[in-house]
Amino acid sequence: MTFELFYWPGLQGRGEFVRLAFEATGTPYVEVVQGMDGLMRTMDDPACQDPPYAPPFLRVGDELIGQTANILAYLGPQLGLVGESSRARRWVNQLQLTLADLVVEVHDSHHPIASRLYYSQQRTEARKRTADLIEYRLPKFFAYFERVLANNPHAGGWLSEGAMSYADLSLFQVIAGLDYAFPRAMSGFATVFPRCQAVHDAVARVPRVAAYLKSPRRIPFNTTGIFRHYKALDRASPF
Amino acid sequence: MTFELFYWPGLQGRGEFVRLAFEATGTPYVEVVQGMDGLMRTMDDPACQDPPYAPPFLRVGDELIGQTANILAYLGPQLGLVGESSRARRWVNQLQLTLADLVVEVHDSHHPIASRLYYSQQRTEARKRTADLIEYRLPKFFAYFERVLANNPHAGGWLSEGAMSYADLSLFQVIAGLDYAFPRAMSGFATVFPRCQAVHDAVARVPRVAAYLKSPRRIPFNTTGIFRHYKALDRASPF
Repeated sequence: MTFELFYWPGLQGRGEFVRLAFEATGTPYVEVVQGMDGLMRTMDDPACQDPPYAPPFLRVGDELIGQTANILAYLGPQLGLVGESSRARRWVNQLQLTLADLVVEVHDSHHPIASRLYYSQQRTEARKRTADLIEYRLPKFFAYFERVLANNPHAGGWLSEGAMSYADLSLFQVIAGLDYAFPRAMSGFATVFPRCQAVHDAVARVPRVAAYLKSPRRIPFNTTGIFRHYKALDRASPF
Repeated sequence: MTFELFYWPGLQGRGEFVRLAFEATGTPYVEVVQGMDGLMRTMDDPACQDPPYAPPFLRVGDELIGQTANILAYLGPQLGLVGESSRARRWVNQLQLTLADLVVEVHDSHHPIASRLYYSQQRTEARKRTADLIEYRLPKFFAYFERVLANNPHAGGWLSEGAMSYADLSLFQVIAGLDYAFPRAMSGFATVFPRCQAVHDAVARVPRVAAYLKSPRRIPFNTTGIFRHYKALDRASPF
């Protein structure tokens, strides 16, 4: 079985949450490079009975699997990135969906009016929304994940049970992205959310992840992705 | 097994997607009424090992299950609201997550800057974002669902296979909500997206759903929910 990953070229975006699952487990996958037009053609194939709404999506045999959390719920058990019980799988899926909610909010901080328009066309609104993100939303989300980590009765410091799950990989990615986008705001993060920071650091130290992050396969963060560094949007740390 | 549903009082919100699954199948459930403070206490119980980030959530025995799509993925098989195969379950979950993305966009059309602030504090931005929602986003999302319906090889007119799934219930709810929020914009909808409209109408005709919609249990749409009617935001139909 070959896992073929389709995503927009040149950015990490939501595709990165899937790449990390493959890379962290040494799972072979093919990154299908076809450019924007080819990607649209694959998605818009009029004969397709299970078209994805947007990338990322996987092709596995004749099935297309879209929506990041849905892809990870599919891959998790096969890649050993989620516990065996159905309860553990529901819990990790729930955590992933909450991270996905945060990812939308981060995206919308630089695109609060329309994803179709440029950032430069919604700068004023972006400043307002990013201020709210940094002052209120990030503290609320990370207080939640910090509590989840504190309350996990298993040793290891992971979000669910005693082993790294795909939600931990995604938490790593979100923190790494925020560190890139908002270095000033994130400067106090590790002190206030030490358990979240520890997940980030532990994921980054996983040998396969560390090798991936240094490889050319890791697309650098840039201002076409979800996490964007615009100096005008960053602000003093609320933490 | 008792299904206890927790949600903010006085609005349909995301809780309604779960209520519809129970109501459409005649499944007994308990709506736990405890007000905002009680709800916060349940979620913030410091001993809780699987706290939800936000309502709606279900309590089933000692398990709390949060995130709407996660709740529906759990209930779907038990309530007969999704096909038997794992592929059908992935597909319906994918459709539900795409509907969830649309729901966030509808919410943010009246709250583009901060969900913490009132609509009246972000009116100007709301007008811009709602214009984009109506002109570009609704047509894109519904063109997608129309294509999914057209390409489903099974008879019946449903999104997946030949039977009503929880994604069909959610599509009904989204269209009903948009009809309330944007009556002018939605006036041309049925002509351009007849298959989506047919799902809406077929769900509304399911006897248990029809009875529910007429009952006092169906909270009326209002301006505290996701779908809000503000005359200043509605505009000419793009369809």
